[in-house]
Amino acid sequence: MKDNRSFAIIGGDLRQVKMANALAQDGYCVKIIGFNDIEFHKDIGIMNNIGDAVKDTDIVVAPLPCSLDNETVNAPFYHSDIYFKDLFKQLSKNHVFLGGKISDKVMKLAQVYNIYPIDYFNREELIVLNTIPTAEGAIQIAMEELPITLHNSRCLILGFGRIGKMLASMLAGIGANVTVEARKHSDLAWIKSYGYKGIQLNQLAEVIGDYDLIFNTVPSVILDKELLLRIRKECLVIDLASKPGGVDFEMAKDLGVKTIWALSLPGKVAPNTAGDIIKDTIFNIIDELGV
Amino acid sequence: MKDNRSFAIIGGDLRQVKMANALAQDGYCVKIIGFNDIEFHKDIGIMNNIGDAVKDTDIVVAPLPCSLDNETVNAPFYHSDIYFKDLFKQLSKNHVFLGGKISDKVMKLAQVYNIYPIDYFNREELIVLNTIPTAEGAIQIAMEELPITLHNSRCLILGFGRIGKMLASMLAGIGANVTVEARKHSDLAWIKSYGYKGIQLNQLAEVIGDYDLIFNTVPSVILDKELLLRIRKECLVIDLASKPGGVDFEMAKDLGVKTIWALSLPGKVAPNTAGDIIKDTIFNIIDELGV
Amino acid sequence: MKDNRSFAIIGGDLRQVKMANALAQDGYCVKIIGFNDIEFHKDIGIMNNIGDAVKDTDIVVAPLPCSLDNETVNAPFYHSDIYFKDLFKQLSKNHVFLGGKISDKVMKLAQVYNIYPIDYFNREELIVLNTIPTAEGAIQIAMEELPITLHNSRCLILGFGRIGKMLASMLAGIGANVTVEARKHSDLAWIKSYGYKGIQLNQLAEVIGDYDLIFNTVPSVILDKELLLRIRKECLVIDLASKPGGVDFEMAKDLGVKTIWALSLPGKVAPNTAGDIIKDTIFNIIDELGV
Amino acid sequence: MKDNRSFAIIGGDLRQVKMANALAQDGYCVKIIGFNDIEFHKDIGIMNNIGDAVKDTDIVVAPLPCSLDNETVNAPFYHSDIYFKDLFKQLSKNHVFLGGKISDKVMKLAQVYNIYPIDYFNREELIVLNTIPTAEGAIQIAMEELPITLHNSRCLILGFGRIGKMLASMLAGIGANVTVEARKHSDLAWIKSYGYKGIQLNQLAEVIGDYDLIFNTVPSVILDKELLLRIRKECLVIDLASKPGGVDFEMAKDLGVKTIWALSLPGKVAPNTAGDIIKDTIFNIIDELGV
Repeated sequence: MKDNRSFAIIGGDLRQVKMANALAQDGYCVKIIGFNDIEFHKDIGIMNNIGDAVKDTDIVVAPLPCSLDNETVNAPFYHSDIYFKDLFKQLSKNHVFLGGKISDKVMKLAQVYNIYPIDYFNREELIVLNTIPTAEGAIQIAMEELPITLHNSRCLILGFGRIGKMLASMLAGIGANVTVEARKHSDLAWIKSYGYKGIQLNQLAEVIGDYDLIFNTVPSVILDKELLLRIRKECLVIDLASKPGGVDFEMAKDLGVKTIWALSLPGKVAPNTAGDIIKDTIFNIIDELGV
Repeated sequence: MKDNRSFAIIGGDLRQVKMANALAQDGYCVKIIGFNDIEFHKDIGIMNNIGDAVKDTDIVVAPLPCSLDNETVNAPFYHSDIYFKDLFKQLSKNHVFLGGKISDKVMKLAQVYNIYPIDYFNREELIVLNTIPTAEGAIQIAMEELPITLHNSRCLILGFGRIGKMLASMLAGIGANVTVEARKHSDLAWIKSYGYKGIQLNQLAEVIGDYDLIFNTVPSVILDKELLLRIRKECLVIDLASKPGGVDFEMAKDLGVKTIWALSLPGKVAPNTAGDIIKDTIFNIIDELGV
Repeated sequence: MKDNRSFAIIGGDLRQVKMANALAQDGYCVKIIGFNDIEFHKDIGIMNNIGDAVKDTDIVVAPLPCSLDNETVNAPFYHSDIYFKDLFKQLSKNHVFLGGKISDKVMKLAQVYNIYPIDYFNREELIVLNTIPTAEGAIQIAMEELPITLHNSRCLILGFGRIGKMLASMLAGIGANVTVEARKHSDLAWIKSYGYKGIQLNQLAEVIGDYDLIFNTVPSVILDKELLLRIRKECLVIDLASKPGGVDFEMAKDLGVKTIWALSLPGKVAPNTAGDIIKDTIFNIIDELGV
Repeated sequence: MKDNRSFAIIGGDLRQVKMANALAQDGYCVKIIGFNDIEFHKDIGIMNNIGDAVKDTDIVVAPLPCSLDNETVNAPFYHSDIYFKDLFKQLSKNHVFLGGKISDKVMKLAQVYNIYPIDYFNREELIVLNTIPTAEGAIQIAMEELPITLHNSRCLILGFGRIGKMLASMLAGIGANVTVEARKHSDLAWIKSYGYKGIQLNQLAEVIGDYDLIFNTVPSVILDKELLLRIRKECLVIDLASKPGGVDFEMAKDLGVKTIWALSLPGKVAPNTAGDIIKDTIFNIIDELGV
């Protein structure tokens, strides 16, 4: 079956456009719905009707995030709406349905129609690979905002999870001096192993005034008034953590600390790479399923 | 004398602003002329008259480039004009006068007044250190323009001079796949030693279609019609070479090859770093002179 | 209490010697037993009697591994034997007793005497930091054995656990071309992120003949007859996995594949670094205990 | 002619053995003389007479160094002697004769026979590529001698010529903290650009006591009594400079500073890589000659 898998791409942004084109270029049969005024690969079937779009396809892909309102597919390039209930009605047992960040509501709705969605945003490899455009996007913002080079600058990263790891690696790669704050002794051991300077949370107050650039990756408010007061006025804070973020933004504004909350970078700064990552992840999933 | 050197900064852009502030912060006596509406360090003397500006100073610094018209000091933040002849009239034997990219005309004018200018733009260490903001600026442009990450992208650098070396090092550092074109066997040996892929000019036609991003650093037109025709349509060309550049720009436009000619990046993307580089170079010069 | 912690070091190899000296140099009170003909820091008390050694000390440290026979302390530099039962008899509630790789037998014996040993070899940070001398030792062996440079050589690492990660980082750092075999998609994502080539187990047969150097880090026999047959005859295999190792050693010998099973490298190649790692880990433990 | 170039390899060590085998494997016609008890590729002609060895060959290669006594070819694996005068007698106009480190005496002797030798050791690409096995050999020695890991060690390199550059790059790559001493401001600019710490000669006395490992690459005695006195007693000094070296060796011995003078590393630590480098250089030469 491998050679003649066929795909329906339902809505999404430039990542889904790239994915559709890449699939067509690889020779797969691809149909799409949910995009106006976008040029696609010549072999792609552009559909106006959800039933036509999924007909005779094996794999149906919803975007990331799947929906913004729990009712319609997230389709920023579409003049019209695609309702999940209309989509689900058209799917059969033979369809594999995949989406990103599928909410509980959409999940339940699917089950009403005997559809069992797979959330590709749960896949560890996608999360890991997404750290690349995330880190690169954060670096781009820093380059744009700062009147100094990142090379030889003093950078502090809060947290050594996936994004912290990738960011540290890239920043060191272009010549920044990298310090990472982490809590666990084993993380500090890795930080040392990779040649960065490691500090613990309780040392933060003492040293935070030394940095030109601070990246937060921890989704809990670390940079409170006490710490914000100690940050140099030329310093830029880039917060990469999802809600609630890692900064007391109100306080930062009052104190004049320049802060940028940068979310969802992969789709914004490198949609083609982000589209490839989703595509590769979907293939891992369907290979494992034996579809 | 070291401890009480005093400086006059005559015109310039944000690099000279940064330099003046840094000198004042280091405790030197600094006077400036040629900047409106710019906030300076509190200890800096803001002058309105060229005679007052240079009076009792040891080192007089003109910007980079020194002049755009061979008559007045390059002072983009000034509402008025500072003529070199007025400046030179005020200088005595005891002043050390430094400027960047001093033209033959300005040089000759200076000699009429028995002034012997020193061009800090001729200093090898300044040229080397300027490759850092140049390379970082080029990387920033690439990040902004491309819908892919530089990480894992295929980058080609034409030339392995100073800028080529720095660019290769930074691109590899953030995870790009780097190929460098060079002519000399010894350069190709270094390219291999640093872990990049090396190719020779005559191999270019064969492989140029493989790249996502091409940086030119050689000031002679390499990318002619024949080569431009072979470049992938998604590829971005960034030309960092001074006139005439390395690209047949007309032809590139006709063929739809996206090309950006990026000049004078240090002052644009990282004026503070660029200002520090000028400052450090000036100190090397005056230390060597024993001033 | 922090300032006047005192230590008893009971047996061990050069790592314990280094640890004892480093503690004395830091100003701690240190007594040792179990070393003949070794020169120690002048402030260290050299004891001949286990009771004297532990008397008035807070922290009692046994070596790594703690014992080779489950009865006596592992003390390769000692002409005599130190029995655990004699040691435990002398310990009181106020002693913190630490050892490395403490066997079930020794653990049970301790409990008979109401001693509750802490095994520092279970600490994640020690395991992580030990990957540094392990990887460096493996690289040293490869340099010694091969008639080629590691720079530009083709290296394959089996497994992307802690040792695999460190080894890949160091090998890439000196310019080797690094491929890593891993099973999980998320590991392959990290491998790609760090710029190495990733392959899956089922691709191994196809490519294993391309390498100059193969490091195994997986403690299960991967390199069986089928794979060994495909390895180039100039290739060196270094097995870093604990028993049973990752190579069918008999078969390798028969087929003429050069294989080195390199175990316990930290204490052998860099005893001082390994001693510092143990010391730092012990401090993490006692800090957490509030001792 | 390219396809049927033929080679005579006259004497040498494992590098020449490797070169001969590599040429034969590439399909070239190869004859050798000057090796007893060495196994060669089956297609290589093993000659016992110098006339037979060079007959019908295009390119005649002498080893590196060419000669130790100015009379005979350097042939450590040969039970007999090959006199240059006997060799030159057999060469005609049509032979290209290459050797490494050809002395004035041998050069003059050649001219008597109307032979115009080419010294491949003068080629910049060979010198550059030889820095790789030199640096790796120096690192191997340091790993063998020191009880600490190079990772996180404090390394000082004296000089930032070709070997200094490669050594700095590799040491940083495995995680050492690298300081480089250089004289020129432009070298210090490069050192900073690559992320190492740079110091000037006059700062050496102040900081030399901070290092675990010192590499000298400058062929003039820098490490005199005054500096040797300040080196830590655990520090290892590795001198890579040709005569007279960079260390007052007598004084170092008296003061108990451990010093290793490591010369001619490429042929010793990585003969196969070194043989490939010579081979590639010879091809560059004959390609340029159009032979």
